[in-house]
Formats: sequence, structure tokens, C-alpha cells
Amino acid sequence: MPYTIGLDYGTNSVRCLIVDVTNGDEMGSCVYEYETGEAGIILDAADHNLARQNPADYLKGIEVTFKAAIAEARQTAKGFAADQIIGVGIDTTGSTPIPVDKNGTPLNSLEEFKDNPNACAWLWKDHTGHAEAAEITQLAQNEHPEYLAKCGGTYSSEWFFSKILHCLRADPEVFDAAYTWAEHADWLPAVLTGTQAPDKLKRCRCAAGHKAMFSNDWGGYPDAAFLSKLDPKLGALRKTLSRQTQAVDEKAGHLTDEWAEWLDLPARIPVAMGAFDAHLGAVGSGIKEGLLVKIIGTSTCDMVVAPTNTNLPDIPGICGIVDGSILPGHFGLEAGQSAVGDIFNWFVNCIEPGGAKAGSHEALTERAAKLKPGQSGLLALDWNNGNRNVLVDQRLTGLLLGQTLHTRPEEIYRALIEATAFGALTIINRFEEYGIGVGEVVNCGGIAEKNPLLMQIYADVTGREMKISRSAQSCALGACIAGAVVAGKASGGYDRFADAQAAMCGIKDLTYKPIARNNEVYGRLYFLYKQLHDAFGVRECSGQLANVMKELLSIKDSA
Amino acid sequence: MPYTIGLDYGTNSVRCLIVDVTNGDEMGSCVYEYETGEAGIILDAADHNLARQNPADYLKGIEVTFKAAIAEARQTAKGFAADQIIGVGIDTTGSTPIPVDKNGTPLNSLEEFKDNPNACAWLWKDHTGHAEAAEITQLAQNEHPEYLAKCGGTYSSEWFFSKILHCLRADPEVFDAAYTWAEHADWLPAVLTGTQAPDKLKRCRCAAGHKAMFSNDWGGYPDAAFLSKLDPKLGALRKTLSRQTQAVDEKAGHLTDEWAEWLDLPARIPVAMGAFDAHLGAVGSGIKEGLLVKIIGTSTCDMVVAPTNTNLPDIPGICGIVDGSILPGHFGLEAGQSAVGDIFNWFVNCIEPGGAKAGSHEALTERAAKLKPGQSGLLALDWNNGNRNVLVDQRLTGLLLGQTLHTRPEEIYRALIEATAFGALTIINRFEEYGIGVGEVVNCGGIAEKNPLLMQIYADVTGREMKISRSAQSCALGACIAGAVVAGKASGGYDRFADAQAAMCGIKDLTYKPIARNNEVYGRLYFLYKQLHDAFGVRECSGQLANVMKELLSIKDSA
Repeated sequence: MPYTIGLDYGTNSVRCLIVDVTNGDEMGSCVYEYETGEAGIILDAADHNLARQNPADYLKGIEVTFKAAIAEARQTAKGFAADQIIGVGIDTTGSTPIPVDKNGTPLNSLEEFKDNPNACAWLWKDHTGHAEAAEITQLAQNEHPEYLAKCGGTYSSEWFFSKILHCLRADPEVFDAAYTWAEHADWLPAVLTGTQAPDKLKRCRCAAGHKAMFSNDWGGYPDAAFLSKLDPKLGALRKTLSRQTQAVDEKAGHLTDEWAEWLDLPARIPVAMGAFDAHLGAVGSGIKEGLLVKIIGTSTCDMVVAPTNTNLPDIPGICGIVDGSILPGHFGLEAGQSAVGDIFNWFVNCIEPGGAKAGSHEALTERAAKLKPGQSGLLALDWNNGNRNVLVDQRLTGLLLGQTLHTRPEEIYRALIEATAFGALTIINRFEEYGIGVGEVVNCGGIAEKNPLLMQIYADVTGREMKISRSAQSCALGACIAGAVVAGKASGGYDRFADAQAAMCGIKDLTYKPIARNNEVYGRLYFLYKQLHDAFGVRECSGQLANVMKELLSIKDSA
Repeated sequence: MPYTIGLDYGTNSVRCLIVDVTNGDEMGSCVYEYETGEAGIILDAADHNLARQNPADYLKGIEVTFKAAIAEARQTAKGFAADQIIGVGIDTTGSTPIPVDKNGTPLNSLEEFKDNPNACAWLWKDHTGHAEAAEITQLAQNEHPEYLAKCGGTYSSEWFFSKILHCLRADPEVFDAAYTWAEHADWLPAVLTGTQAPDKLKRCRCAAGHKAMFSNDWGGYPDAAFLSKLDPKLGALRKTLSRQTQAVDEKAGHLTDEWAEWLDLPARIPVAMGAFDAHLGAVGSGIKEGLLVKIIGTSTCDMVVAPTNTNLPDIPGICGIVDGSILPGHFGLEAGQSAVGDIFNWFVNCIEPGGAKAGSHEALTERAAKLKPGQSGLLALDWNNGNRNVLVDQRLTGLLLGQTLHTRPEEIYRALIEATAFGALTIINRFEEYGIGVGEVVNCGGIAEKNPLLMQIYADVTGREMKISRSAQSCALGACIAGAVVAGKASGGYDRFADAQAAMCGIKDLTYKPIARNNEVYGRLYFLYKQLHDAFGVRECSGQLANVMKELLSIKDSA
């Protein structure tokens, strides 16, 4: 039997999965929680925007999880042997750039920068570069609007150049010591294939296209003159970035002999180009034309594809439209919400409502499930971590409206779930307004699996049946599919993604169908949500409240 | 030594106070917590608008508290004897009408209506009559706009006729069984003086003028034709209401021999007309021209006076402007906020943030005090119980804005305090816009006494020094002052309120002065508060969000 291994680097842990290539059956898996910082994230109490990771945790995760997953597969599958593994795929968070030296070594592993968070990986949800993001947006709008046309018109503080430019300004010593910056998604496959030196490092279309304004239409990354206007040193950095990028069906290389020996794997098996977790999660959930994949976790990613042979217009507020980033021959479109599970976690962990017993996710969900749509009189905006789509504005904040003297924690909890559902509908509507039909929705991620209330609310709010990806580990499964495609049919894998998905993906029997009466009430509530959304979020809106959240943040910054 | 007794009927309890008339020294006091319902209030889980009280609790309170206060005074004051008591004053909440039979007996004390909340006292914060309030407002706007001109242009669901008309509609059996309806403030002095039969019952200017559209300008209560258009039975009720009302310096009568004997008091001592707690609290806090008294408790009352010989314009959004309701020879102007302490209580008791230890008022206040103005990035509207002034709209709800994933309970707690301070400033500004200067502010009530953080925030937000009434029992002290005035100089009291106040009132040494830097930050925040206030609260505002809270409440009502 042929097997592949997928490595899925999430926000707090890395998961390794071994699957049977013929049917997607999961043979063994293991999760390793990153050891550095709080739940694997280096934080700074004085700066809520900061979120970093230790690349050493990424490496330790390989060893720990590969060995345990292989051991489990030996027990699960009769006759399993590690030499039946034909390929490796990898997905990571992003944009999560790492400053590296001439050897491709992360700077924080050098003695000199050991305790410096700026020398670590800058996790996707690090927002320290928000001022730089605004600066990049401004310059691009003036000089190269085409750079932003496929990423929603605004360059985000979560992205590659915002972070690098912020490091240049905030910690020039680290910036100067870095030979270049490597995305986690590129660096990890390069490490496994011995290509992490900057002159050999391959960069994936996915990260470059969605987060670094890379496009073959203008010769790759933004031109040196543009980057130099932001800072001459940033212009000089461009020569360390490759001219080409690789699509998701290409190889990063082959597993080095050292790694093969250390992990007890066949030598020289192909390792796929890395991709973002959401993109391979979409693959693992069976993404195809007309099917939206929602990955629901601390935040969400909402992914669709559209064939490259159609004339796709620019879609304002959609952050990424990149040829070949999800499936070859298709534009991959990535949207998402900056916080979903994180909002519920905030309410439970920071506010701690109702005391220890009554305030758990389970207890709140149970009580919230007894409420009818609209019954609480509450309405919320899901912007506690800004808005990734369709407003693309980090300087937005949460809002809760409708409180009385009787408002209960479970009512707020439900209003927060509903707010994220309204946010999800806003994204779907935007796709459809621009001709990308969303006929089918497949969800994956922990929350989609574990929270029937949330799934039913999403069905009721969006008026669409909510399906759940069969695998509880869709991202890792997507990585396994990529491993099977780079291995190819000749080695027991597949030559095409569609063939691999047909064999390896599926959905669960249990789905959530919209209830007409609830959908009607949510229609009324969504009308109000959209009023608040536009009044507080859209600068040109007649509501004229778009200054409020930003002015509050300015006052906060100066306090 | 001459002494007077004051009875202060609050929302949850009644307090009795005995003071030395020569200097206001407090000799004895006692508090009785009403026994019926939750904290003395009859609630209905199915209808959050309902709040009733049992008049039997009011009577039991007299006996319990008089006897204990007199016993304490005997211990405190050398040579004190109950026969040195020269007068009695009474204040109550309002509008708190009670349906009574031909003898002035509350209907709920009849077997037939024993367990019927509609036969009890309808507490000021009962809002079951909100639809009727709208109906009364509509009719008055069309036919008698002068009825509303001195009460802010909107008839409130908290007021006399809204409640009675709602009872007529919702429970005609109770309405039909009632000979008339008596305000708690009128009924209690009448019981003590044996004048509770409807044909003898005196009605005070304060309750009638502020809550029942009474004015000598149009011959008393609204005319029968007007009331009949609302319902012929309401028109018929008018003849049971007196033609005249008494100002605050007049007598309700003299203590009956039965009560005197039972309470061991001198027979036939004068009992002052009742008045609302806020009005006598203002008297007890030393109210005079240019001085605003804020009574801060579960809600607030903000009271000023203006001489009747000036030409005072109508003031939109100020709920009551009544000749002689606070001081003789002055218009009494009453404004207020529907919820202040109740909002903090909601957060602590309904949301229970931070677990049992961290979520008390004390713990939250301690942590909130460490925050700087503006530091949390939060902004709230203080409308969890609607808005009494200057919007006069019960169908408004709370709002909290600016939440991130790091927002802490103490930040929300502080934002709620700040919201009530912004609400307070909005009222002060409205007075000043119409020529009533607010040069001095004296606060009283439990929160003003116990929460230095709140007082400092009020000083910083309003830019005015916050003083605290010397007496912790300003309302009861005001009742004692009224008792001293109806007793008169000849009996050892006073002929004028100003003389009694000069002798009996004072402020505490500790005051709260505005800090310039905080005042500057709060100026910026207030600008944003006012934006939200107008956008959500003012129908004609360009913000165009005035539908949002109302539509949410409609959806809630139909859920």
C-alpha cells in the first residue's frame, strides 16, 4: 500500500498525519504543542500586536510527530512499513516570515539574538506592522495600484513586507543581520530537502502571491524602485527573493539522506512545495469550482477557486486572488475573518462570565442553544481582531449592542457566534456579487466538528446547507494529497489533484440544513448587522461613524 | 431639643431617620428591607418590564423602623424623648401608583386580588406600559402639546397614566375594582393622617406635576375629553383625582391618635405632604439656584431649581419642570439617568465576570482605578434601561464598542462608569444650553459615598468639582427638613426651607476636583460618545442608525 505523510503547522501546534493514498484512511497521527511562550506564541504584555514563534519548535515538532505517527501507523495498519511512504506534504500558517542568515538559519538560533523576539518567526497574527501596512498601501495606491488589485485594495499588517519593514524600523540590528526572510511555508520544506540556503530556497506561489504582491504579470515581487521608496534597504532585499515561484503541485525537492535516516524514512522521496494551511485544508476538504471551503478555528479562511481561463474581475475586499495557489489551473481566492474561535475564547477566558462552572464553552453553548434567533435583542460586530474581509481594516474593534439590565452571558455568547456567521455571509455575498457562485459549503476545523449550534446558526444565517469535511484533519490531509501528487501515479500516487481528491476526500453524513423560520429572522438581523458594518466600517458611508473605532484606538495609543 | 422624623421609601427598602432640628445631627435611624419578591420587588421572568411592590411592606416598614430609630435616639441623645418630635416628613419613589378601593385600601390586600401583581404598587421602574406611553404621547402631541411641553415632549412608560392605562387594557378586572389610583408619595402620608379615603386624599404637586401632566395652567390633570379618547374609563377616572395639588411645604394633615399611640409619638404632630425621594434628597443636599444635586443610586436624579419669577423656556428632553415641586417659589427641574448603579450591578451579578473573587464591585473598581482615561479603547452607551434624559426613549439599549481579544472585565467596568458620566454631562449641557447655569454639583446616594473612582471620573468628565452631601441619608434628611418646615418656627422648626437647609445641611470635606489631563482625554471621548448618542438615539440624525435598537427590540418581542 502507498502512504503519504502530511505536516500541518498550526498556530499553537504541529500535527503529523499518515494516510493511505488509495482511500484517504488515516493510519497514524501525532500532535506536538510548541513549547516556547504561551501556547506556543511569544507575546508581549506591553504590545498586544506582537505574536512571534520559535523556529526551533518547528524542527522539534518534525522529529516528535513523525516518529510517533509512524509508530501508530505500524500498530493500525497490517503490514505497514515506513518504506511504503511515497511523499511528504507540508502546510503552515502565514504570512509567517523568519529572518535567516546566509545559511538559511533563523537568527534567533544565533547566540547574539537568542532572546530577541524580532529574530524569531513573525506569526501571521502579529500586527506590529500596522503603520507600515498603511504606508505600503498608500504608496501602492499612488504608484502601483495593480499590486493591490488582487488583494483587496489594502496591504495588511499580517503580511510579509509590513512585518519586514517594521523590523527594519524597530530593530535595524536584526534586519541588517538577516540575509533574507523566508516564509515558514517555504523554509520548512527547504530544511527537509537541504535547500534552505537563500540561493537555493524555492518560494511557493501561495505565500508570495497572497501575502507579498508577487505576480508574473509584473515580473514577480514588487519592483526594487517601489520597495526602495519605502526604504532603500527594503529595495536591496529584493535581490535575495527568487524571481520565480512554484505552484502547489511542484516539488520543493527530495528528502535528504540525513533526514531520511534520522526519521527512518525512504531516502530521496519527494517533498511538495509548502502551502498555507488554509489552502491545503481546502484541498483536503475537496475544493472545486462552486464549492466554498470554510476552515473555522481561532480565525477562519474562506476559500474558493475559479478557472484561470475565465476573465475574473478584481474583487474589492477579497485579500488574495492567485493563479495556482490552491489548485493548478485555477485562481485560488482566499478570504477570511480575523477572529472567530478567538472571540469565543476571549469571552470565556478573558471575561470569565458566570463563574467557573457556568462559563465554559460547553455550558454557554448548551444554554445558548435554547435561545431563539432574535430573542436576546443583541447584535454584535465580529471585529475584536479587526476585519480581514471585506473591509480589510485592522483598525476596527468589536461592538455589542442591545444590552439590557437582564442580558445573560449565554445571550452574549450566542450573539458573538451570530456575529461571526454574519461576517461569513458578508464574504459569501461578496463572492457572489462578482460572479463566483457559492452553491456548496464544506466546513472543517475543530469548531466546525465540535459545535453543532454554531453550524446550525451558520446554516440559518447563510441560508445554505453546512457540510463537514470527513477528515478531522483536513489541512494535514491536504498536505498528504500534495505529497501524493508530487509522488505521481508512477509511484502509487496521482498525477492530478482532482483524482487524488476523488479518492482521498469526503464529507460526513451529518449536515446542517437551514431552518426557514430562523433564516427569516436572521435576514432581519443581517440587515441591521450590515447597517452597523457599513456605518462603522466604510469611510464613505452616510452613517459617518467610521471615525469612531479609529479615534478610540488613537486615544488608546496615546494613553 | 426639637427633633423631626423622616421616612425615605427607596426601591428596595425604607429608611427612618430622626434628626436634631437645630443642626441636622442624626440621632437614630433604621432600615427595613421589603419582604415581598426579590429584594422587595415583585418580578415576572416572562416580562422584564414588570416591577411591582407590596404596599403591606410599606406599612410594616413604618412600625419596624420608627420604633428602632426612636430606641436608637434614646441611646444616642441625652434626654431624648419621643415627645420632642415636632413633625414628620416622607419621601417615596415615583411614579409608583397603587390601585385603591373606596376606603383607600390597596386592592392587593383584598382576598380577591391577593396574588395579582396588577393589584400591587406599580414601581417607578415598571415599564409594562411602554405601548400606552407611546399612545399618550401621540395623542398629546396632536391635541394638547402643552401637556408635554414641560416634561420633555414624551410621556414616559414610568409615569402615572401609562401604568393605569396599561392595567385597564391588560387586567380590566383590577382596573374596574379600583376606585382610584394613589401615588405612594400621597398614600403614605394620608394613611398616617387618616386621610387615605379618595375623597380626602391630598395629592402632591411633585408627583402630579412631574408624572401626571398636572398644571394649574390648564386646570389640573389632563381634561376628561383627552383621557376619554385614550379610553372612556380613563376619562371617568379623572373625577376621582383632586382638582388641587399641594406644594412641598404644606401639610398632609396630623398624625392620627391611633398611629401616635401605636408608635409612641406625640398626638396630632404635623405630617408634611409626601414628595419623591429625589426631590427631598435635593432639599437635604442643600439645593438652591445654580447648584445641581445628583442622587446616584441604581438610577440617578439630577435636580436643579429656577425662580418662578423668571421666564423659563421649555427644555426639550428634560422630563419635569414643575412649580413648587422641590422648593416653594421655584420651578423644580428633574432630570436623570434610567440606570447607573443598575448597570454596574448587571455587569457584576448577571455577567459575573472574572469568577467569584475577581468580579466583585470592589475588586473591579480597584483594578479599574489603575487604568488611564482612554487606555482601554472602549466606549459604552449607558442605555441598558433606556434613556430618561435627554432622549426620553425607553426603547433604547446598551452598547459597548472597542473590544479586542484582550479586553478585560475591569476595562468594561470602567467604560460603564465612564458611560454614565458622559450621560450625566449630556444632562448638564442641556440645562446650560437653556440658560440654567450649573456652577456647583453636590452628590448624594450610596455610590457617591462609596466609590471615589466614580466620583473622580465624574469630575474629570464634567470638568466640575464633585462635592458630597454631608449626610449619608440625604433623602431622609430632606424629609426631616420638610417635617421641620410644616412644624414651623413656633414649634421649634422653621418657616422657610432656606433657613432649615442652612441649619441642617452641609457637604463633606473631601471633594473631587477635575484633573486637567484627564478632562482633555475625556473631551475627546465625549465627542465620540455624542456621535453614538445622536446616531443611535436621535431620529433626525444623519447617522441614520436610530432604527437599529428599536428594530432589535421588535425582533426580540416577536421571537
